[in-house]
Amino acid sequence: MSHRHTDVPARVISEEACPVAEVLDHVSGKWSIGILVAAAHGPVRFTELERRIEGISRRMLTLNLRKLERDGLLTRTVHATVPPKVEYELTGMARELHTHLSGLVGWAEQHRAAIQSARVAYDERKSAATAPGTAV
Amino acid sequence: MSHRHTDVPARVISEEACPVAEVLDHVSGKWSIGILVAAAHGPVRFTELERRIEGISRRMLTLNLRKLERDGLLTRTVHATVPPKVEYELTGMARELHTHLSGLVGWAEQHRAAIQSARVAYDERKSAATAPGTAV
Repeated sequence: MSHRHTDVPARVISEEACPVAEVLDHVSGKWSIGILVAAAHGPVRFTELERRIEGISRRMLTLNLRKLERDGLLTRTVHATVPPKVEYELTGMARELHTHLSGLVGWAEQHRAAIQSARVAYDERKSAATAPGTAV
Repeated sequence: MSHRHTDVPARVISEEACPVAEVLDHVSGKWSIGILVAAAHGPVRFTELERRIEGISRRMLTLNLRKLERDGLLTRTVHATVPPKVEYELTGMARELHTHLSGLVGWAEQHRAAIQSARVAYDERKSAATAPGTAV
C-alpha cells in the first residue's frame, strides 16, 4: 500500500503502532489533556489543579499526575516548607505537546455542538432501523 | 482563578469540562487516531483499515468505526454491488481534526524514546525508594 505525499505520518501509526499508540493513549486521555492544559502557565499545586479541572476526582488526578511524571512530562518538586509544598510543572517536551493539545481542544470546543447533533441523528436513524416491522 | 492571556484555551477545560472532555476522549484514543489517520487519504474499506492499523482487532475496529460514524467524523457508504462494498470516509470536520492529530502523532513519534527513558528512570527511582532499609 503506497501513500500519496502528504504531511501526514500515516506510516507512523501503521508501522510502529504499539509504542506510538501507547504514547498517544497516555497523553491524549481527557484527564491528561486537562492536567497538561491546566499546568501550562507555570508551576501549580495539587489543589489548584483539582480546582481548575472540573469533574476530576482526587484519585484520578493523583493517578494521572503520577503517569505524566513517569512519562517525563511533569516534574514534581517538593519544597522543604512546613507543611511541604508540592508543585507540578510541565517539562520542555510537555510544553511542545501542549501546542498540539491546544489545537485539539480548540477543535473540540468548536465542533462540540455538531458532534452532539450528529449523535442524536445517528441514534434516531438506528432506532428507526430497528423499529418493529423494519428489516434490521 | 484568572488566567494570563495566552493562546491556550485552559478555560475550555475548566468551565465546560464534561462535553469537551468527552469529545476529546472519543477522538483521541489510540484507535480513533489510528483510524482517522489511516482514512485520511480518501475512502477506505474495512479490510484496508484493518491492514493499515497494526495491532487493532476486528472488534475494536468495528466499535471505533461505529463511534466515529456516530460522532459525525466518518461517513459509511454501502455501494450496491455484489457483494456490497462498504467504504468509510472522513467528513469535513474530521479532516480539520486530522491536522491536529498529525501534529500529535508527529510529537509522539519524535519523543517516544525520551518517554521510554523517562519511564525507566522513574521506575528505578521508585524501586530504589522502596528498597528494604530505605524510608518510603
